Amino acid sequence: MEPIFIQGVQLNGEVTNILIEKQRITGIGSNLPMPANAFRIAGSRLAAFPTFANMHTHAAMTLLKGLGSDLPLQQWLHDSIWPAEKNLDGEAVYWGVKLACLEMIKSGTTLFNDMYFLLPHAARAVAEMGIRGILGLNIFGDGNELTEDLFLQLREEVEGASSLLKLCIAPHSVYTVSPKGLTHCATMSQRHNAPFQIHMSETEREVEDCIRQHHYRPYTLLEHLGVLELTQGRFVGAHSLFLDQEEIELMGRRHVTVTHNPASNLKLGSGYRFLYTELRNAGVTITLGTDGSASSNNLDMIEASRLMSYLQKGVRQDPTVLPTTELQQVATENGFNAVGLDAGKIAVGKLADLMLVDLDNLAFVPNNDALSGLFYAAHGDAVDTVICNGRILMQHHHVDGEEEILMQARRHTDKLRPSA
Amino acid sequence: MEPIFIQGVQLNGEVTNILIEKQRITGIGSNLPMPANAFRIAGSRLAAFPTFANMHTHAAMTLLKGLGSDLPLQQWLHDSIWPAEKNLDGEAVYWGVKLACLEMIKSGTTLFNDMYFLLPHAARAVAEMGIRGILGLNIFGDGNELTEDLFLQLREEVEGASSLLKLCIAPHSVYTVSPKGLTHCATMSQRHNAPFQIHMSETEREVEDCIRQHHYRPYTLLEHLGVLELTQGRFVGAHSLFLDQEEIELMGRRHVTVTHNPASNLKLGSGYRFLYTELRNAGVTITLGTDGSASSNNLDMIEASRLMSYLQKGVRQDPTVLPTTELQQVATENGFNAVGLDAGKIAVGKLADLMLVDLDNLAFVPNNDALSGLFYAAHGDAVDTVICNGRILMQHHHVDGEEEILMQARRHTDKLRPSA
Repeated sequence: MEPIFIQGVQLNGEVTNILIEKQRITGIGSNLPMPANAFRIAGSRLAAFPTFANMHTHAAMTLLKGLGSDLPLQQWLHDSIWPAEKNLDGEAVYWGVKLACLEMIKSGTTLFNDMYFLLPHAARAVAEMGIRGILGLNIFGDGNELTEDLFLQLREEVEGASSLLKLCIAPHSVYTVSPKGLTHCATMSQRHNAPFQIHMSETEREVEDCIRQHHYRPYTLLEHLGVLELTQGRFVGAHSLFLDQEEIELMGRRHVTVTHNPASNLKLGSGYRFLYTELRNAGVTITLGTDGSASSNNLDMIEASRLMSYLQKGVRQDPTVLPTTELQQVATENGFNAVGLDAGKIAVGKLADLMLVDLDNLAFVPNNDALSGLFYAAHGDAVDTVICNGRILMQHHHVDGEEEILMQARRHTDKLRPSA
Repeated sequence: MEPIFIQGVQLNGEVTNILIEKQRITGIGSNLPMPANAFRIAGSRLAAFPTFANMHTHAAMTLLKGLGSDLPLQQWLHDSIWPAEKNLDGEAVYWGVKLACLEMIKSGTTLFNDMYFLLPHAARAVAEMGIRGILGLNIFGDGNELTEDLFLQLREEVEGASSLLKLCIAPHSVYTVSPKGLTHCATMSQRHNAPFQIHMSETEREVEDCIRQHHYRPYTLLEHLGVLELTQGRFVGAHSLFLDQEEIELMGRRHVTVTHNPASNLKLGSGYRFLYTELRNAGVTITLGTDGSASSNNLDMIEASRLMSYLQKGVRQDPTVLPTTELQQVATENGFNAVGLDAGKIAVGKLADLMLVDLDNLAFVPNNDALSGLFYAAHGDAVDTVICNGRILMQHHHVDGEEEILMQARRHTDKLRPSA
């Protein structure tokens, strides 16, 4: 792979050059010379930022977005989502994940942390699109299907498809997986050093149910089952909206990572009071996600970032909370680091996951503060170029094969609709 | 002006044709014939929606966006905004308003309700851009500068620039305008049948100050001064976030219009609990705005709509609140109607303010529900074509003269920065 030389690009308010060799950023500087064999990207009118890590998705559900809008949760699931999901086969998952990856690339995301089924089909799609994916196998009940053989075979299929993929163990939640199932998943995660993710405390109701059934709040239950210890350093709890102080302290001690999904939490009416400051102060790693497009309904991490920041400032009535530099870390670095990737920052030695945004996009006109332009004014369409692991996935807003993805995604969606 | 014939476009889920003659929509139907002299727009892969009414802006402040992000309110004003505003001359206002209009056209807005100064320069800019503007003259103190002569001269300059412009009387707020000034403004508004707008109850602090100083909450104060009666049918109260039940009932009786600005309220830390359901049930007309880009930081009404909907659903923990059809009415029709314009709906006889969105934009792929795609997935960049008052202002994302606007906006901003 030839080196990439981004010439005369804005980075942190300065004009500089960025050199990428193999998977990493190997040079940054205004006097940096261009290697003779390098592929040159003209950086004038562009600014470089790290790409985003979308830490909670159900990528294939992009095919279902817009079904049953504004319905009460249970009716939405029963009448719209479940009937459509019943028709979802491997090919539909494949094209749904391709469409999701296309949307993520277009809006500057190069890592996503997913939870769904039919993983080998998803893996093939992500491998072809060239981004990083943590693919979580959803487990329910006692998790008896998660045998040693199944895990090893699935890992071979997922991680064999691309070096940028990882198989993850993903018990759905404490209300759909038994204590036995939860412990089994955590044990498997430890034995195979596999990432672990689970939906946690997304609604008040599920917390109340957990207390009634298990006598503990959800995080405390996981601690008592040994799950937090077994998965330490690998645990990602999506949502984590309804917590008490004891849980927050426990989560800090166990080095838990949480993923906030503001759009989904608001749109589904789950809640709005994410305990950002409290969790950060306790030492919890905070990451950001969009959730699946069936609930939120896009995968734009710029939008998710802005929503997170606006909610924190508005609900706490304090405009100084979560300034742009901190917000950027949550939306980029924290996510990559949570799954052991040294990316999310544009610095020498880091993995080359970065994007170039168009400074002629109105969000950056006038450009009084580029980071503020990105997080408070822009949308995903400002992203011009995306590089993942040292490879260019998009230039001038174009991704190879996008026309076919649109066509196939529409075709497979037509087969899913409850009326079909 | 030749008729416009939009052929084979999606409208409310059906494929149809739309005919526009002079300023109005004169025909809709799948069998509607195309007049021989019509300008034809191919509607395949496009869907038609009414354009937005952005009911609270400070358009020229687009030049100041991103200055002093994340600072406490008073420090932001003192250190960033006021020093820059001191350098703002007529030419800067002209180019700032042009830039704002460009951004509004690009994201599907054809009416804005503004509040600022140097109005003749703003009027010239809006007239050239071709959208509708209600330009509010900001009044402070006793409002002595607002003489009969000044009003008539300014109205001549503003409304003479374009038939789509209206001069509005805009006392800044109850904490910056005296009771005498407020009554004077209301009297002038009644005498000249001029629109009236004012910032109301944006922060808890200003409500407490009002009670301390005047013994009434802000809306009750206006009632006691006779302002609500004098401006009945013409009153627009921006923000209106902190209200009690007595005020809400009063606002309904006086046919008040309020403009909710969710992004600004959150980002500045003002608050998050807009009383949508309560106000609607009391008969208050609810409209939507972005506020100026110095506080919020873009003019994208799709984003503002989504944020409003998400906040209502999330804070009330009810996903059925403010469904897309109702949201659309708030963001379009309610705004136009509040200033006496029969627009905001695509129907025969209505003013021809409409936009065509690109169904190949990923927000609409797959297109399970176009209204849900628009409000829950799209951003302003999905807008392909904008028509205002029967005139095409944008086709295929291109607005005439946009390159010069970018250049001049940057040039004038460079002169404003506090460091300059």
